[in-house]
Amino acid sequence: MTIKKMTLLLPMVLLMFAFQPAKKKKVIFFGDSITQQGARPGGYITRIDSMSKVERLADQFEFVGKGIGGNKVYDLFLRFQPDVLDQKPDIVLVYVGINDVWHKASAGTGTDYDKFGKFYDAIISTLKKQGIQPVVCTPSVIGERNDCTNQQDGDLNQYAKWIREYAAKNAVPLVDLRKIFLDYLAKNNPENMEKGILTVDRVHLNEKGNQLVADAMWKVIKTLK
Amino acid sequence: MTIKKMTLLLPMVLLMFAFQPAKKKKVIFFGDSITQQGARPGGYITRIDSMSKVERLADQFEFVGKGIGGNKVYDLFLRFQPDVLDQKPDIVLVYVGINDVWHKASAGTGTDYDKFGKFYDAIISTLKKQGIQPVVCTPSVIGERNDCTNQQDGDLNQYAKWIREYAAKNAVPLVDLRKIFLDYLAKNNPENMEKGILTVDRVHLNEKGNQLVADAMWKVIKTLK
Amino acid sequence: MTIKKMTLLLPMVLLMFAFQPAKKKKVIFFGDSITQQGARPGGYITRIDSMSKVERLADQFEFVGKGIGGNKVYDLFLRFQPDVLDQKPDIVLVYVGINDVWHKASAGTGTDYDKFGKFYDAIISTLKKQGIQPVVCTPSVIGERNDCTNQQDGDLNQYAKWIREYAAKNAVPLVDLRKIFLDYLAKNNPENMEKGILTVDRVHLNEKGNQLVADAMWKVIKTLK
Amino acid sequence: MTIKKMTLLLPMVLLMFAFQPAKKKKVIFFGDSITQQGARPGGYITRIDSMSKVERLADQFEFVGKGIGGNKVYDLFLRFQPDVLDQKPDIVLVYVGINDVWHKASAGTGTDYDKFGKFYDAIISTLKKQGIQPVVCTPSVIGERNDCTNQQDGDLNQYAKWIREYAAKNAVPLVDLRKIFLDYLAKNNPENMEKGILTVDRVHLNEKGNQLVADAMWKVIKTLK
Repeated sequence: MTIKKMTLLLPMVLLMFAFQPAKKKKVIFFGDSITQQGARPGGYITRIDSMSKVERLADQFEFVGKGIGGNKVYDLFLRFQPDVLDQKPDIVLVYVGINDVWHKASAGTGTDYDKFGKFYDAIISTLKKQGIQPVVCTPSVIGERNDCTNQQDGDLNQYAKWIREYAAKNAVPLVDLRKIFLDYLAKNNPENMEKGILTVDRVHLNEKGNQLVADAMWKVIKTLK
Repeated sequence: MTIKKMTLLLPMVLLMFAFQPAKKKKVIFFGDSITQQGARPGGYITRIDSMSKVERLADQFEFVGKGIGGNKVYDLFLRFQPDVLDQKPDIVLVYVGINDVWHKASAGTGTDYDKFGKFYDAIISTLKKQGIQPVVCTPSVIGERNDCTNQQDGDLNQYAKWIREYAAKNAVPLVDLRKIFLDYLAKNNPENMEKGILTVDRVHLNEKGNQLVADAMWKVIKTLK
Repeated sequence: MTIKKMTLLLPMVLLMFAFQPAKKKKVIFFGDSITQQGARPGGYITRIDSMSKVERLADQFEFVGKGIGGNKVYDLFLRFQPDVLDQKPDIVLVYVGINDVWHKASAGTGTDYDKFGKFYDAIISTLKKQGIQPVVCTPSVIGERNDCTNQQDGDLNQYAKWIREYAAKNAVPLVDLRKIFLDYLAKNNPENMEKGILTVDRVHLNEKGNQLVADAMWKVIKTLK
Repeated sequence: MTIKKMTLLLPMVLLMFAFQPAKKKKVIFFGDSITQQGARPGGYITRIDSMSKVERLADQFEFVGKGIGGNKVYDLFLRFQPDVLDQKPDIVLVYVGINDVWHKASAGTGTDYDKFGKFYDAIISTLKKQGIQPVVCTPSVIGERNDCTNQQDGDLNQYAKWIREYAAKNAVPLVDLRKIFLDYLAKNNPENMEKGILTVDRVHLNEKGNQLVADAMWKVIKTLK
């Protein structure tokens, strides 16, 4: 082939690449009712999807919500194979822990602290072994009072601390939702309300709550392209 | 080879088979602290092993205890692969449910009824798919009073009933320990004591309790050779 | 006064008594939300009031509901003085125990078995000391299944048994609602439903439930005139 | 009697008063197992008694422990009349709340937040009406970790906050044990242990814990002579 011919072909080749869709990274959000609602209009997953479009990164990511109401860490483990591994994701954000703590008081069926860690590690370790990028999130809030007087604050802090230490020790990206929420509430909850700032009912996210989660997660997801 | 030679060889061949040890069936007992204690001297697994020897069936079975204190159904599921599947058993007896009910009151960390069934089925279904023979057992007792006044009687009955119906529906051999215990206590607990008949502490088995479990399980195991 | 005058006066005196309204016995129903609802149209207290009129006993009784939702035995004790003793009743029916058992699982705030008895006795003993006639009732049901598979059946049976034994030992009239409900459900719940036979939601009474309670209580109250 | 004789007598009379022992103030410590242990050698009540002697105030106070293991606020209310009111105390320190929170998780029998306040107020109001000086104490700790990661920290903070606000609103002297403990642990628990600094088992006081309580209470009691 002469130089001339190549010169003529080059634009065509470039054009081909330009039209070939980039392989999107599949991002799974694995969690409970907050994540289930996150996939709805206005939900945090929907917001991340919108943000990715605004930032012209829509061709790089595909976002999939895999949240089921009432789920605890061992429920995630039970449906881990079909709902996550079989979906061949590139990135998995695990956002769990609220029901593990909450259900202790509301139904007598929470998750023991030591067992929480075992199931959590079983999920994250398997993701890593399979070359899937895990991202861990601390559980946000059960009650929005900002002076550590929500019934489950101590317990949630304990589980969140475990996740932070696990993330650091195992070099897993962390979205520290609990810290982000507590910092926000310290500044934006002057009347020390137990709901209505970031949640509608002490747990499930309102618009602001969904946006806060979306911002925090998106910031980390973008670094993983 | 002539007939004559074969005639000479035959006894030798038979002799070979006679001395070749039969392939033993590996029986795993999968459960909680009751099963953990069952592997000790006097425990129900040890008793089954002794009974198999007395009945000259010791060459047909190998008994392995895989009980861990405090385990609920989802704890069994978490260690199912390494502790059971990787051990290549022929038969697996699943004896679980007491902590799933008990820990509701004692630590707020019991297992929701609907989730108990999901994890239980995940274990049994997988055993069946892999050609391993499951045997299911109903949870025995939390308290030995015989007039349905032990705190967890209703809940235990509910979980036991689910196991019975699951066994019937899925054609899985059943050792109905709860029924066996309740029948025994109806006759042998005239003072309506809450412990001391079959248990030392309302839950963990004394000698009689271990023998009762051993008898009931052995009766079923023998039919599976 | 001569005999003659007395003879003339006698009919008048009798007439006076005939028109003087009999002192009505004040009957207080002391309990939780079931009793609170019992005072509404269709409720068991309203039904007892109607039955007393039909049987021309309306002039002998006055019925007062003192039920508050969520109450346990110690809540009754807290408001015992203003809500009962200060009302100067003649008869008090105590119908409590469901929340004492139920709230163990639903909020972690049930009543310990031994403490239930202490508060119960404090109420009944005080009534007796003050010359007020107590009537005790066993807690009806949490769930209507008739094979002892409702989660709280064992615990409810235990508390009910305590009340029965207490009533017998202290010669207090008993309305054994739990027995009456279980007997009714044994015959009238062929599909083993957990609600809808005598309750609307496993606990609170429907029309049939209210009538069953009304019948059982009225039968005992009538004997106390 | 002449003026002269009276003049002679006066010094004698004054002398009599000088030697007549002052009427001691009876101080009752009303609480749970921590208070029960407080009356033992080394316990906080025993230490307060010793301190009063060292400071030559032993003739002004009499200290009586009325603590019973496992007690919650409603248990105090049940035995309020015989154990406190009938003892004719001058001062009553109420130190309760730990079991109200703790038993939620350990037995499903804690005290609802709103009911805690009702019983608490019933006790304090009655003391005030009878001219007895109440002193309220916030519940110390369940777990000594100093970063709000003890399971019950949020709940304990909530109950403690209620007591603080109640004390302020009703002008009742406050011994803010929870604040005192948390401040001490912030400085003296560098390894963030969950026990062993002020408690032997996360709840019950060791020597340092007893002394800390004794110091804080004695400081307030002295001001009440």
